[in-house]
Amino acid sequence: MKILSIDTSNAPLAIALVEDDQLVAETTLNVTKNHSVFLMPVIEQLMKMASWTPAELNRIVVAKGPGSYTGVRIAVTTAKTLASTLKIELVGVSSLAVMAKDPAELTNLPVIAIFNARRNTVFTGGYQMEQGKLVSFIEDAHMELSELIEKINEKQQPVLIVGDILPEFKNQFETNSKFITLGNEQSSFPSAFQLGLMGAKINPVSDIDSFVPDYLRITEAEMNWQKSHPGELKKSYVREV
Amino acid sequence: MKILSIDTSNAPLAIALVEDDQLVAETTLNVTKNHSVFLMPVIEQLMKMASWTPAELNRIVVAKGPGSYTGVRIAVTTAKTLASTLKIELVGVSSLAVMAKDPAELTNLPVIAIFNARRNTVFTGGYQMEQGKLVSFIEDAHMELSELIEKINEKQQPVLIVGDILPEFKNQFETNSKFITLGNEQSSFPSAFQLGLMGAKINPVSDIDSFVPDYLRITEAEMNWQKSHPGELKKSYVREV
Repeated sequence: MKILSIDTSNAPLAIALVEDDQLVAETTLNVTKNHSVFLMPVIEQLMKMASWTPAELNRIVVAKGPGSYTGVRIAVTTAKTLASTLKIELVGVSSLAVMAKDPAELTNLPVIAIFNARRNTVFTGGYQMEQGKLVSFIEDAHMELSELIEKINEKQQPVLIVGDILPEFKNQFETNSKFITLGNEQSSFPSAFQLGLMGAKINPVSDIDSFVPDYLRITEAEMNWQKSHPGELKKSYVREV
Repeated sequence: MKILSIDTSNAPLAIALVEDDQLVAETTLNVTKNHSVFLMPVIEQLMKMASWTPAELNRIVVAKGPGSYTGVRIAVTTAKTLASTLKIELVGVSSLAVMAKDPAELTNLPVIAIFNARRNTVFTGGYQMEQGKLVSFIEDAHMELSELIEKINEKQQPVLIVGDILPEFKNQFETNSKFITLGNEQSSFPSAFQLGLMGAKINPVSDIDSFVPDYLRITEAEMNWQKSHPGELKKSYVREV
Protein backbone atom coordinates (compact mmCIF):
# COMPACT_ATOMS: atom_id res chain seq x y z
CA MET A 1 0.00 0.00 0.00
CA LYS A 2 1.42 3.37 -1.10
CA ILE A 3 0.71 6.09 1.46
CA LEU A 4 1.15 9.86 1.39
CA SER A 5 1.13 11.33 4.90
CA ILE A 6 0.75 15.03 5.67
CA ASP A 7 1.15 16.99 8.91
CA THR A 8 1.01 20.79 8.90
CA SER A 9 -0.96 21.09 12.11
CA ASN A 10 1.73 23.05 13.95
CA ALA A 11 4.88 25.03 13.12
CA PRO A 12 6.67 22.18 11.29
CA LEU A 13 5.50 20.86 7.95
CA ALA A 14 6.06 17.09 7.65
CA ILE A 15 5.36 14.97 4.61
CA ALA A 16 6.24 11.34 3.91
CA LEU A 17 5.77 8.56 1.41
CA VAL A 18 5.43 5.20 3.15
CA GLU A 19 5.04 1.76 1.60
CA ASP A 20 4.53 -1.52 3.51
CA ASP A 21 5.78 -0.08 6.81
CA GLN A 22 8.93 1.23 5.11
CA LEU A 23 9.92 4.85 4.75
CA VAL A 24 10.35 5.78 1.08
CA ALA A 25 10.82 9.55 1.35
CA GLU A 26 10.23 12.22 3.98
CA THR A 27 10.69 15.95 4.32
CA THR A 28 10.30 18.05 7.46
CA LEU A 29 10.38 21.84 7.22
CA ASN A 30 10.50 24.21 10.15
CA VAL A 31 10.52 27.63 8.54
CA THR A 32 8.29 30.57 9.32
CA LYS A 33 6.66 30.82 5.91
CA ASN A 34 3.09 29.69 5.41
CA HIS A 35 2.65 25.94 4.97
CA SER A 36 0.50 26.56 1.90
CA VAL A 37 3.60 27.77 0.02
CA PHE A 38 5.56 24.53 0.47
CA LEU A 39 2.99 21.77 0.85
CA MET A 40 2.31 20.91 -2.79
CA PRO A 41 5.88 21.52 -4.06
CA VAL A 42 7.29 19.21 -1.35
CA ILE A 43 4.75 16.48 -2.18
CA GLU A 44 5.69 16.80 -5.85
CA GLN A 45 9.44 16.62 -5.15
CA LEU A 46 9.12 13.54 -2.94
CA MET A 47 6.85 11.76 -5.45
CA LYS A 48 9.32 12.54 -8.21
CA MET A 49 12.34 11.27 -6.27
CA ALA A 50 10.46 8.09 -5.34
CA SER A 51 9.26 7.68 -8.95
CA TRP A 52 5.67 7.47 -7.72
CA THR A 53 2.76 8.74 -9.79
CA PRO A 54 -0.41 10.13 -8.15
CA ALA A 55 -2.43 7.29 -9.72
CA GLU A 56 -0.37 4.76 -7.73
CA LEU A 57 -1.29 6.23 -4.34
CA ASN A 58 -3.66 4.11 -2.24
CA ARG A 59 -4.21 6.20 0.86
CA ILE A 60 -3.75 9.70 2.29
CA VAL A 61 -3.05 9.96 6.02
CA VAL A 62 -3.48 13.38 7.57
CA ALA A 63 -2.67 14.73 11.02
CA LYS A 64 -6.13 16.07 11.85
CA GLY A 65 -5.21 18.34 14.76
CA PRO A 66 -5.13 19.79 17.28
CA GLY A 67 -2.85 22.65 16.32
CA SER A 68 -3.05 25.97 14.52
CA TYR A 69 -6.40 26.53 12.79
CA THR A 70 -4.79 27.53 9.55
CA GLY A 71 -2.23 24.74 9.63
CA VAL A 72 -4.79 22.03 10.37
CA ARG A 73 -7.13 23.39 7.70
CA ILE A 74 -4.38 23.41 5.07
CA ALA A 75 -3.46 19.77 5.64
CA VAL A 76 -7.03 18.50 5.96
CA THR A 77 -8.28 20.43 2.93
CA THR A 78 -5.34 19.26 0.81
CA ALA A 79 -5.78 15.66 1.99
CA LYS A 80 -9.53 15.67 1.27
CA THR A 81 -9.01 17.23 -2.15
CA LEU A 82 -6.31 14.72 -3.11
CA ALA A 83 -8.27 11.72 -1.80
CA SER A 84 -11.43 12.85 -3.56
CA THR A 85 -9.71 13.68 -6.85
CA LEU A 86 -7.64 10.49 -6.94
CA LYS A 87 -10.54 8.40 -5.56
CA ILE A 88 -8.36 6.90 -2.84
CA GLU A 89 -8.67 6.26 0.90
CA LEU A 90 -8.42 8.96 3.58
CA VAL A 91 -7.73 8.51 7.27
CA GLY A 92 -6.91 10.99 10.03
CA VAL A 93 -4.66 10.56 13.06
CA SER A 94 -4.42 12.78 16.15
CA SER A 95 -1.46 15.14 15.73
CA LEU A 96 -0.65 14.50 19.41
CA ALA A 97 -0.70 10.70 19.05
CA VAL A 98 1.83 10.98 16.20
CA MET A 99 4.24 12.80 18.53
CA ALA A 100 3.76 10.26 21.33
CA LYS A 101 4.05 6.97 19.42
CA ASP A 102 7.80 6.63 18.84
CA PRO A 103 8.92 7.62 22.38
CA ALA A 104 6.14 5.49 23.91
CA GLU A 105 7.35 2.46 21.92
CA LEU A 106 11.00 3.03 22.76
CA THR A 107 10.64 3.84 26.45
CA ASN A 108 7.47 1.99 27.45
CA LEU A 109 6.71 5.08 29.55
CA PRO A 110 3.41 6.95 29.47
CA VAL A 111 4.06 9.85 27.06
CA ILE A 112 2.33 13.21 27.11
CA ALA A 113 2.52 15.27 23.91
CA ILE A 114 2.01 19.02 24.05
CA PHE A 115 1.59 21.79 21.49
CA ASN A 116 1.84 25.42 22.48
CA ALA A 117 -1.66 26.97 22.34
CA ARG A 118 -0.53 30.36 23.72
CA ARG A 119 -1.43 32.19 26.96
CA ASN A 120 0.15 29.39 28.99
CA THR A 121 -2.28 26.83 27.56
CA VAL A 122 -1.50 23.67 25.60
CA PHE A 123 -3.12 21.14 23.37
CA THR A 124 -2.22 17.91 25.07
CA GLY A 125 -2.88 14.17 25.04
CA GLY A 126 -1.43 11.26 27.00
CA TYR A 127 -0.58 7.94 25.36
CA GLN A 128 1.03 4.69 26.39
CA MET A 129 1.75 1.28 24.89
CA GLU A 130 -0.49 -1.54 26.08
CA GLN A 131 0.03 -5.00 24.55
CA GLY A 132 1.71 -3.52 21.51
CA LYS A 133 -0.94 -0.85 20.93
CA LEU A 134 -0.90 2.88 21.59
CA VAL A 135 -3.79 3.76 23.92
CA SER A 136 -4.89 7.13 25.27
CA PHE A 137 -4.82 7.79 29.01
CA ILE A 138 -5.37 11.57 28.83
CA GLU A 139 -7.82 12.41 26.06
CA ASP A 140 -6.66 15.08 23.57
CA ALA A 141 -7.77 18.43 24.98
CA HIS A 142 -7.01 22.12 25.27
CA MET A 143 -6.08 23.10 28.82
CA GLU A 144 -4.02 25.37 31.06
CA LEU A 145 -0.51 24.09 31.58
CA SER A 146 -1.18 24.10 35.33
CA GLU A 147 -4.16 21.77 34.82
CA LEU A 148 -1.97 19.32 32.91
CA ILE A 149 0.62 19.36 35.67
CA GLU A 150 -2.14 18.64 38.23
CA LYS A 151 -3.28 15.65 36.18
CA ILE A 152 0.28 14.33 36.04
CA ASN A 153 0.76 14.74 39.77
CA GLU A 154 -2.56 12.97 40.48
CA LYS A 155 -1.40 10.00 38.40
CA GLN A 156 1.73 9.67 40.58
CA GLN A 157 3.70 7.92 37.83
CA PRO A 158 6.74 8.93 35.80
CA VAL A 159 5.76 10.42 32.41
CA LEU A 160 7.76 11.60 29.42
CA ILE A 161 6.78 14.95 27.88
CA VAL A 162 7.39 15.55 24.16
CA GLY A 163 6.53 18.33 21.74
CA ASP A 164 6.67 22.11 22.24
CA ILE A 165 8.74 22.24 25.41
CA LEU A 166 9.17 26.02 25.52
CA PRO A 167 11.59 27.41 28.13
CA GLU A 168 8.66 28.77 30.19
CA PHE A 169 6.89 25.38 30.07
CA LYS A 170 10.11 23.60 31.02
CA ASN A 171 10.45 25.79 34.06
CA GLN A 172 6.88 25.11 35.23
CA PHE A 173 7.21 21.36 34.67
CA GLU A 174 10.45 21.17 36.62
CA THR A 175 9.23 23.36 39.47
CA ASN A 176 5.82 21.76 39.95
CA SER A 177 6.22 18.04 39.39
CA LYS A 178 8.67 15.30 40.30
CA PHE A 179 7.13 12.80 37.85
CA ILE A 180 8.23 14.48 34.63
CA THR A 181 11.05 13.65 32.23
CA LEU A 182 11.40 16.06 29.32
CA GLY A 183 12.00 14.78 25.78
CA ASN A 184 14.98 15.73 23.62
CA GLU A 185 15.20 17.91 20.50
CA GLN A 186 14.35 15.09 18.11
CA SER A 187 11.12 14.30 19.95
CA SER A 188 9.91 17.87 19.52
CA PHE A 189 9.23 17.39 15.79
CA PRO A 190 6.47 15.29 14.22
CA SER A 191 7.51 12.36 12.04
CA ALA A 192 5.42 12.03 8.91
CA PHE A 193 6.89 8.51 8.58
CA GLN A 194 5.34 7.61 11.95
CA LEU A 195 2.08 9.28 10.82
CA GLY A 196 2.08 7.06 7.72
CA LEU A 197 2.78 3.91 9.78
CA MET A 198 -0.08 4.71 12.16
CA GLY A 199 -2.49 5.62 9.38
CA ALA A 200 -1.74 2.39 7.50
CA LYS A 201 -3.35 0.40 10.34
CA ILE A 202 -6.61 2.39 10.58
CA ASN A 203 -9.80 0.66 9.44
CA PRO A 204 -12.41 1.51 8.38
CA VAL A 205 -11.29 4.54 6.41
CA SER A 206 -13.04 7.91 6.69
CA ASP A 207 -15.85 9.25 4.57
CA ILE A 208 -14.04 11.93 2.59
CA ASP A 209 -16.84 14.52 2.38
CA SER A 210 -17.76 14.48 6.07
CA PHE A 211 -14.16 14.31 7.37
CA VAL A 212 -13.40 17.26 9.68
CA PRO A 213 -10.37 18.36 11.71
CA ASP A 214 -10.20 18.11 15.51
CA TYR A 215 -9.60 21.72 16.48
CA LEU A 216 -10.40 21.04 20.16
CA ARG A 217 -11.22 24.66 20.89
CA ILE A 218 -13.43 27.30 19.37
CA THR A 219 -12.01 30.26 17.47
CA GLU A 220 -11.68 33.69 19.04
CA ALA A 221 -14.52 34.88 16.79
CA GLU A 222 -16.76 32.13 18.18
CA MET A 223 -15.68 32.95 21.73
CA ASN A 224 -16.56 36.63 21.25
CA TRP A 225 -19.89 35.73 19.71
CA GLN A 226 -20.73 33.46 22.63
CA LYS A 227 -19.90 36.24 25.09
CA SER A 228 -22.23 38.65 23.30
CA HIS A 229 -24.97 36.02 22.95
CA PRO A 230 -25.33 34.51 26.41
CA GLY A 231 -27.68 31.56 26.57
CA GLU A 232 -27.28 30.79 22.87
CA LEU A 233 -24.15 28.65 23.21
CA LYS A 234 -25.45 25.79 21.15
CA LYS A 235 -26.23 27.86 18.10
CA SER A 236 -23.61 28.24 15.39
CA TYR A 237 -22.17 31.72 15.26
CA VAL A 238 -21.60 31.38 11.55
CA ARG A 239 -25.29 31.27 10.74
CA GLU A 240 -26.18 33.89 13.31
CA VAL A 241 -23.76 36.70 12.62
CA MET B 1 25.64 28.57 13.52
CA LYS B 2 24.15 27.34 10.23
CA ILE B 3 24.89 23.65 9.67
CA LEU B 4 24.41 21.36 6.69
CA SER B 5 24.47 17.68 7.71
CA ILE B 6 24.84 14.79 5.28
CA ASP B 7 24.48 11.03 5.76
CA THR B 8 24.58 8.68 2.78
CA SER B 9 26.61 5.99 4.49
CA ASN B 10 23.94 3.31 4.15
CA ALA B 11 20.75 2.70 2.14
CA PRO B 12 18.96 5.89 3.29
CA LEU B 13 20.08 9.35 2.23
CA ALA B 14 19.55 11.90 5.00
CA ILE B 15 20.21 15.62 4.76
CA ALA B 16 19.35 18.42 7.18
CA LEU B 17 19.79 22.10 7.79
CA VAL B 18 20.20 22.82 11.50
CA GLU B 19 20.59 26.17 13.23
CA ASP B 20 21.17 26.73 16.95
CA ASP B 21 19.97 23.25 17.90
CA GLN B 22 16.77 23.73 15.88
CA LEU B 23 15.75 21.77 12.85
CA VAL B 24 15.25 24.04 9.85
CA ALA B 25 14.74 21.49 7.08
CA GLU B 26 15.36 17.78 6.61
CA THR B 27 14.86 15.19 3.91
CA THR B 28 15.29 11.43 4.21
CA LEU B 29 15.17 9.27 1.10
CA ASN B 30 15.09 5.48 1.04
CA VAL B 31 15.03 4.62 -2.64
CA THR B 32 17.25 2.20 -4.47
CA LYS B 33 18.82 4.73 -6.82
CA ASN B 34 22.38 5.86 -6.32
CA HIS B 35 22.84 8.54 -3.67
CA SER B 36 24.93 10.59 -6.09
CA VAL B 37 21.79 11.27 -8.15
CA PHE B 38 19.87 12.92 -5.31
CA LEU B 39 22.46 14.37 -2.95
CA MET B 40 23.09 17.76 -4.54
CA PRO B 41 19.47 18.33 -5.75
CA VAL B 42 18.13 17.63 -2.24
CA ILE B 43 20.69 20.00 -0.67
CA GLU B 44 19.67 22.67 -3.17
CA GLN B 45 15.95 22.20 -2.52
CA LEU B 46 16.34 22.38 1.24
CA MET B 47 18.58 25.48 1.04
CA LYS B 48 16.04 27.14 -1.23
CA MET B 49 13.07 26.36 1.02
CA ALA B 50 15.00 27.64 4.05
CA SER B 51 16.14 30.73 2.11
CA TRP B 52 19.76 29.92 2.99
CA THR B 53 22.61 30.79 0.65
CA PRO B 54 25.79 28.66 0.52
CA ALA B 55 27.81 31.68 1.74
CA GLU B 56 25.81 31.68 4.99
CA LEU B 57 26.77 28.11 5.93
CA ASN B 58 29.20 27.81 8.84
CA ARG B 59 29.78 24.08 9.11
CA ILE B 60 29.32 20.79 7.27
CA VAL B 61 28.68 17.71 9.40
CA VAL B 62 29.11 14.37 7.68
CA ALA B 63 28.36 10.82 8.79
CA LYS B 64 31.82 9.36 8.19
CA GLY B 65 30.93 5.66 8.22
CA PRO B 66 30.90 2.80 8.65
CA GLY B 67 28.58 1.74 5.86
CA SER B 68 28.71 1.09 2.15
CA TYR B 69 32.05 2.14 0.56
CA THR B 70 30.35 4.04 -2.20
CA GLY B 71 27.80 5.67 0.08
CA VAL B 72 30.41 6.80 2.62
CA ARG B 73 32.69 8.08 -0.15
CA ILE B 74 29.89 10.10 -1.76
CA ALA B 75 29.01 11.90 1.48
CA VAL B 76 32.60 12.47 2.60
CA THR B 77 33.77 13.67 -0.82
CA THR B 78 30.80 16.02 -1.16
CA ALA B 79 31.29 17.33 2.39
CA LYS B 80 35.03 17.93 1.85
CA THR B 81 34.43 19.64 -1.48
CA LEU B 82 31.74 21.93 -0.05
CA ALA B 83 33.75 22.77 3.08
CA SER B 84 36.87 23.48 1.04
CA THR B 85 35.09 25.55 -1.62
CA LEU B 86 33.03 27.57 0.86
CA LYS B 87 35.97 27.81 3.30
CA ILE B 88 33.85 26.59 6.21
CA GLU B 89 34.23 24.06 9.01
CA LEU B 90 34.02 20.29 8.57
CA VAL B 91 33.39 17.66 11.23
CA GLY B 92 32.60 13.96 11.03
CA VAL B 93 30.41 11.82 13.28
CA SER B 94 30.20 8.02 13.47
CA SER B 95 27.22 6.86 11.41
CA LEU B 96 26.49 4.36 14.21
CA ALA B 97 26.56 7.00 16.96
CA VAL B 98 23.98 9.04 15.01
CA MET B 99 21.60 6.05 15.09
CA ALA B 100 22.15 5.45 18.80
CA LYS B 101 21.85 8.98 20.20
CA ASP B 102 18.10 9.62 20.18
CA PRO B 103 17.03 6.23 21.61
CA ALA B 104 19.86 6.38 24.19
CA GLU B 105 18.63 9.80 25.34
CA LEU B 106 15.00 8.76 25.49
CA THR B 107 15.42 5.36 27.14
CA ASN B 108 18.63 5.76 29.14
CA LEU B 109 19.39 2.20 28.01
CA PRO B 110 22.68 1.14 26.43
CA VAL B 111 21.96 1.22 22.69
CA ILE B 112 23.66 -0.90 20.04
CA ALA B 113 23.39 0.33 16.46
CA ILE B 114 23.88 -2.10 13.58
CA PHE B 115 24.23 -1.81 9.83
CA ASN B 116 23.97 -4.86 7.59
CA ALA B 117 27.46 -5.67 6.23
CA ARG B 118 26.32 -8.88 4.44
CA ARG B 119 27.27 -12.55 5.00
CA ASN B 120 25.75 -12.40 8.49
CA THR B 121 28.18 -9.65 9.56
CA VAL B 122 27.38 -6.19 10.83
CA PHE B 123 28.97 -2.84 11.42
CA THR B 124 28.14 -2.17 15.02
CA GLY B 125 28.82 0.19 17.91
CA GLY B 126 27.43 0.44 21.44
CA TYR B 127 26.58 3.78 23.05
CA GLN B 128 25.02 4.97 26.27
CA MET B 129 24.31 8.25 28.02
CA GLU B 130 26.60 9.08 30.94
CA GLN B 131 26.07 12.41 32.69
CA GLY B 132 24.31 13.87 29.69
CA LYS B 133 26.94 12.71 27.19
CA LEU B 134 26.87 9.88 24.67
CA VAL B 135 29.79 7.53 25.36
CA SER B 136 30.90 4.39 23.54
CA PHE B 137 30.90 1.04 25.35
CA ILE B 138 31.41 -1.16 22.26
CA GLU B 139 33.79 0.52 19.85
CA ASP B 140 32.57 0.80 16.23
CA ALA B 141 33.68 -2.37 14.46
CA HIS B 142 32.91 -4.90 11.75
CA MET B 143 32.02 -8.31 13.20
CA GLU B 144 29.98 -11.49 12.85
CA LEU B 145 26.48 -11.13 14.26
CA SER B 146 27.24 -14.07 16.56
CA GLU B 147 30.22 -12.20 18.02
CA LEU B 148 28.01 -9.19 18.78
CA ILE B 149 25.46 -11.42 20.52
CA GLU B 150 28.28 -12.94 22.62
CA LYS B 151 29.41 -9.46 23.67
CA ILE B 152 25.85 -8.56 24.67
CA ASN B 153 25.44 -11.76 26.68
CA GLU B 154 28.79 -11.19 28.45
CA LYS B 155 27.63 -7.72 29.49
CA GLN B 156 24.54 -9.24 31.16
CA GLN B 157 22.54 -6.01 30.86
CA PRO B 158 19.45 -5.07 28.86
CA VAL B 159 20.35 -3.35 25.60
CA LEU B 160 18.28 -1.76 22.85
CA ILE B 161 19.20 -2.61 19.24
CA VAL B 162 18.52 -0.09 16.48
CA GLY B 163 19.34 0.10 12.77
CA ASP B 164 19.16 -2.63 10.13
CA ILE B 165 17.13 -5.22 12.02
CA LEU B 166 16.67 -7.66 9.13
CA PRO B 167 14.29 -10.59 9.70
CA GLU B 168 17.25 -13.02 9.86
CA PHE B 169 19.05 -10.81 12.42
CA LYS B 170 15.86 -10.46 14.46
CA ASN B 171 15.54 -14.22 14.63
CA GLN B 172 19.15 -14.70 15.83
CA PHE B 173 18.84 -11.91 18.44
CA GLU B 174 15.63 -13.36 19.85
CA THR B 175 16.89 -16.95 19.89
CA ASN B 176 20.33 -16.29 21.38
CA SER B 177 19.95 -13.54 23.96
CA LYS B 178 17.55 -12.57 26.70
CA PHE B 179 19.07 -9.10 27.12
CA ILE B 180 17.88 -7.64 23.83
CA THR B 181 15.03 -5.26 23.04
CA LEU B 182 14.61 -4.48 19.34
CA GLY B 183 13.95 -0.90 18.18
CA ASN B 184 10.92 0.17 16.16
CA GLU B 185 10.63 1.24 12.51
CA GLN B 186 11.47 4.88 13.21
CA SER B 187 14.74 3.95 14.91
CA SER B 188 15.91 2.08 11.82
CA PHE B 189 16.54 5.31 9.89
CA PRO B 190 19.27 7.87 10.50
CA SER B 191 18.22 11.38 11.45
CA ALA B 192 20.25 14.07 9.74
CA PHE B 193 18.81 16.50 12.31
CA GLN B 194 20.42 14.41 15.07
CA LEU B 195 23.64 14.32 13.01
CA GLY B 196 23.62 18.12 12.84
CA LEU B 197 22.97 18.45 16.59
CA MET B 198 25.86 16.11 17.38
CA GLY B 199 28.22 17.75 14.90
CA ALA B 200 27.47 21.22 16.28
CA LYS B 201 29.14 20.25 19.56
CA ILE B 202 32.39 18.87 18.10
CA ASN B 203 35.57 20.87 18.69
CA PRO B 204 38.17 21.19 17.33
CA VAL B 205 36.97 20.84 13.75
CA SER B 206 38.71 18.54 11.25
CA ASP B 207 41.47 19.39 8.83
CA ILE B 208 39.60 19.26 5.53
CA ASP B 209 42.37 17.84 3.33
CA SER B 210 43.36 15.00 5.63
CA PHE B 211 39.79 14.05 6.62
CA VAL B 212 39.05 10.40 5.78
CA PRO B 213 36.04 8.10 6.23
CA ASP B 214 35.93 5.27 8.79
CA TYR B 215 35.34 2.27 6.58
CA LEU B 216 36.21 -0.18 9.38
CA ARG B 217 37.05 -2.98 6.99
CA ILE B 218 39.21 -3.35 3.93
CA THR B 219 37.75 -3.73 0.45
CA GLU B 220 37.45 -7.11 -1.26
CA ALA B 221 40.24 -6.02 -3.64
CA GLU B 222 42.52 -5.35 -0.68
CA MET B 223 41.60 -8.64 0.91
CA ASN B 224 42.45 -10.54 -2.29
CA TRP B 225 45.74 -8.68 -2.66
CA GLN B 226 46.69 -9.47 0.92
CA LYS B 227 45.96 -13.17 0.32
CA SER B 228 48.23 -13.22 -2.73
CA HIS B 229 50.96 -11.20 -0.99
CA PRO B 230 51.49 -12.91 2.34
CA GLY B 231 53.87 -11.09 4.64
CA GLU B 232 53.29 -7.75 2.93
CA LEU B 233 50.21 -6.73 4.90
CA LYS B 234 51.46 -3.29 5.78
CA LYS B 235 52.08 -2.20 2.21
CA SER B 236 49.33 -0.43 0.31
CA TYR B 237 47.85 -2.58 -2.41
CA VAL B 238 47.06 0.51 -4.43
CA ARG B 239 50.70 1.31 -5.05
CA GLU B 240 51.69 -2.33 -5.52
CA VAL B 241 49.14 -3.63 -7.98
